[in-house]
Amino acid sequence: MSENLGWPVRRAARLFGDATAVVDVASGAKVTYRELERRIGALGAALDVPEGGRVGVLAANSLAHLECVLGVPAAGRVLVSLNTRLAEDELCALAEDAGLSVLIADESNAAIAEAVARRAAVPRLVLEHEALVGGPDALTASLGPDTLAAISYTGGTTGRPKGVMLSHGNLLANARHNLITTGHRPEDRWLHVCPLFHVAGTANVLAATWAGARHVVLPRFDATQVCRAIEDHAITHVVLVPTMLAMLLQHEADHPADLSSLRHIQYAASPITPELQRRVLDRFPDCDVAQFYGMTEAAPTVTTCTPADHRRPGGARLASVGAPVVGVEAELRDPESGRPVPVGAVGEIWVRGPNVMVGYWQQPEATAEAMVDGWYRSGDAAYADADGYLYLVDRLRDMIITGGENVYSVEVEAVLAEHPAVLEVAVFGIPDERWGEAVHAVVVVEEAGAASADELVAHCRGSIAGFKAPRSIDLTTEPLPKSGAGKLLKHRLREPFWA
Amino acid sequence: MSENLGWPVRRAARLFGDATAVVDVASGAKVTYRELERRIGALGAALDVPEGGRVGVLAANSLAHLECVLGVPAAGRVLVSLNTRLAEDELCALAEDAGLSVLIADESNAAIAEAVARRAAVPRLVLEHEALVGGPDALTASLGPDTLAAISYTGGTTGRPKGVMLSHGNLLANARHNLITTGHRPEDRWLHVCPLFHVAGTANVLAATWAGARHVVLPRFDATQVCRAIEDHAITHVVLVPTMLAMLLQHEADHPADLSSLRHIQYAASPITPELQRRVLDRFPDCDVAQFYGMTEAAPTVTTCTPADHRRPGGARLASVGAPVVGVEAELRDPESGRPVPVGAVGEIWVRGPNVMVGYWQQPEATAEAMVDGWYRSGDAAYADADGYLYLVDRLRDMIITGGENVYSVEVEAVLAEHPAVLEVAVFGIPDERWGEAVHAVVVVEEAGAASADELVAHCRGSIAGFKAPRSIDLTTEPLPKSGAGKLLKHRLREPFWA
Repeated sequence: MSENLGWPVRRAARLFGDATAVVDVASGAKVTYRELERRIGALGAALDVPEGGRVGVLAANSLAHLECVLGVPAAGRVLVSLNTRLAEDELCALAEDAGLSVLIADESNAAIAEAVARRAAVPRLVLEHEALVGGPDALTASLGPDTLAAISYTGGTTGRPKGVMLSHGNLLANARHNLITTGHRPEDRWLHVCPLFHVAGTANVLAATWAGARHVVLPRFDATQVCRAIEDHAITHVVLVPTMLAMLLQHEADHPADLSSLRHIQYAASPITPELQRRVLDRFPDCDVAQFYGMTEAAPTVTTCTPADHRRPGGARLASVGAPVVGVEAELRDPESGRPVPVGAVGEIWVRGPNVMVGYWQQPEATAEAMVDGWYRSGDAAYADADGYLYLVDRLRDMIITGGENVYSVEVEAVLAEHPAVLEVAVFGIPDERWGEAVHAVVVVEEAGAASADELVAHCRGSIAGFKAPRSIDLTTEPLPKSGAGKLLKHRLREPFWA
Repeated sequence: MSENLGWPVRRAARLFGDATAVVDVASGAKVTYRELERRIGALGAALDVPEGGRVGVLAANSLAHLECVLGVPAAGRVLVSLNTRLAEDELCALAEDAGLSVLIADESNAAIAEAVARRAAVPRLVLEHEALVGGPDALTASLGPDTLAAISYTGGTTGRPKGVMLSHGNLLANARHNLITTGHRPEDRWLHVCPLFHVAGTANVLAATWAGARHVVLPRFDATQVCRAIEDHAITHVVLVPTMLAMLLQHEADHPADLSSLRHIQYAASPITPELQRRVLDRFPDCDVAQFYGMTEAAPTVTTCTPADHRRPGGARLASVGAPVVGVEAELRDPESGRPVPVGAVGEIWVRGPNVMVGYWQQPEATAEAMVDGWYRSGDAAYADADGYLYLVDRLRDMIITGGENVYSVEVEAVLAEHPAVLEVAVFGIPDERWGEAVHAVVVVEEAGAASADELVAHCRGSIAGFKAPRSIDLTTEPLPKSGAGKLLKHRLREPFWA
């Protein structure tokens, strides 16, 4: 069967064998597609893990990490790429949950990987990736679209981590959806700076490989390094989370760089402020700017707000996460009845398509809860306009019910973010005797005293109903806690109030 | 399940409901995507055929025909769109082979359809398409990717017609491959002038619908009408067979038209001469020009020679049918051993992918012969260059073996086509006592006496080996026989010699 992750590399090696496939900026390493095919074939043979065995990876972005992303599934083994920001205890829990046969780690994660391998009884620890890829290409796994390719732990934003099982068919389907939506071409040069341990970070790896494009890999986000990489490698395409975009613009304002090679900027993973959108569109007037919305369970792409939507006169769609991409169905359903809601009404986003996950690893109950008749219930709330564009209002469980009124925290956050002193904001409900829940905000300001709580509440009351304005505000100069993928971990802020 | 032909229309109706979906130039009819969804839903309900039943269509291109292409499969019935150029006896044979439950025909085909329905005992004949689409949308079929969507009779170029069974999954896979390769967008306006009864004619119907683009339909090719339609409807995309391209350029040289809206010209279905390629590229310097190669059994796309390949300095790839598109594997195999042949050697094109047909309708032996381990053996011979680009040399069965030497007729045809007096040419083997087979050519010239056989043989000997030059030439001013899809029917020319 051809429907597996070995296919895109094989095509690229045949059609673009001498083209540079990957540039690892940190190490200076460079491989062609022909070499990449041989190396990941050798990796598969060297793994010495039974078919279906789980292979953990704990590493910053690198050529080695990218080779694991492509090569472990292509060898018929299951990739479990772990979030490098997790604590040792958390990593041990995941290693045990996945039942890792081997853990591959880079130098910067060697110490913690040794501890995890020992405590979680992982039979083999590999700290020298190059030793794995030096042998002959000996790939012989028999794979099909239903073969498990990866378990991707979704820190999610709440509760116990779940291992999202993604098949070869799921990941290839998502790659096709990205190819259709973005139009990857052999002459593209993609900068990978979002973490490769997250499926949002790898989404374009597969698509760009299939098209024969070039990958340029940075270990992690650093605005200086990103600007330099764009200049040095004539980067055409980049995916950033909004926080990275803001930092890039900020840095570049003080340290001008030649970013004129950029043709396509994607952002994803968390809400963006209208202010930041405007700055990006103004700074890159000749660039395609696109938003992608999705989740690990959808491998991950669900909707896109296209470059044309971004440049539409009047900007009506800038607040939208876009419309379902070709290949994916997304509908708004009443979370109780499961029936579609009318245009304009808030419903839960349900997702269907060949990209939707197999289920949660060893959690049949969580799987049954999340999947209904082939639809994945995302838990995200949104409304749609008459054109079918979706507007996120909140995670359903982040909705605040105060005095019988529903408050969508994202609406309050957007208003607070408009205040000039506000850098970051998180709004959630806290227990309140009188109102059941009360609206609470954590607000990051540049320096202490830049704004008062009273001033911010007054600012809100100028734009939204009084019951939506925060009843209490914590002011801080510390950044808000975020997941490896840059998602705000609101539950960390909220939990102390409910404990 | 979402994986069926109802899906693209449903998406377009939701996201682009008020946009014009189809313009029928001949009748002046126009429908939006919302109307199109309702009409094909009504069509399904009105068909009154059991699920899986075969629905024949005998019609020129029209809104009605396009609605059948989308609506019959979306209703869980099997589309059998018949070649309007076939004779009554041939159509009767196909109607009986398919076991049609109903035959839908337009006015221009009503008389022959009545005769076919009577002789082949088709239970129901529909001559009023509008009566089928007037009711409510009542689509309730349960469909999946493996459900049979269409039986497409491949006149092929030799032997008894075979009904190629294409599933919903096959046709959606091909649509994805076309979307990835061509990059359809909502603002595109596609002119459909190749016959919709051939899968090459419908390939972009599905892809363009999925993207929400506009279809403009002409009943058949006519250079004057094509030029007028491009002007009147600001056509951006068109697919033509080489013969049509040549006629269009010829016509337009005498009757200048404003074709400046064109952005993308695809050609397919038969070989093109270098001269015609050069003229197209010169006439449309700002247009993407792409060649597609495939076959009904692959639904149909296999390879593409991209716009970038066409504009490549030196033009080295102009003689190639291109490289396999993303999503399709094509390999050159030794037709005897089934083993891959080395770079540069001639082999048979084998094709694999989610687009490859289910099999031949009620012909298990022909299916078993054509399918090996999931690969479709195309019968086409080609060699590949070091970059993986394929160069067709011939249908294997069109190869001429003369005096122990292999002669690929396409090579001889290319040389003859270079002669200024030659309009069209077909080369094939005829029985010869001394050589086994002898190379024979049928050459179309503009007027009698424009070139002599001796002169043409001398012309060949100036470019290719003596044993490849024709031993006999028939000169004519009549066009060569072609299939509805514009494919040269060489077997009709050859058969009299072998009878």
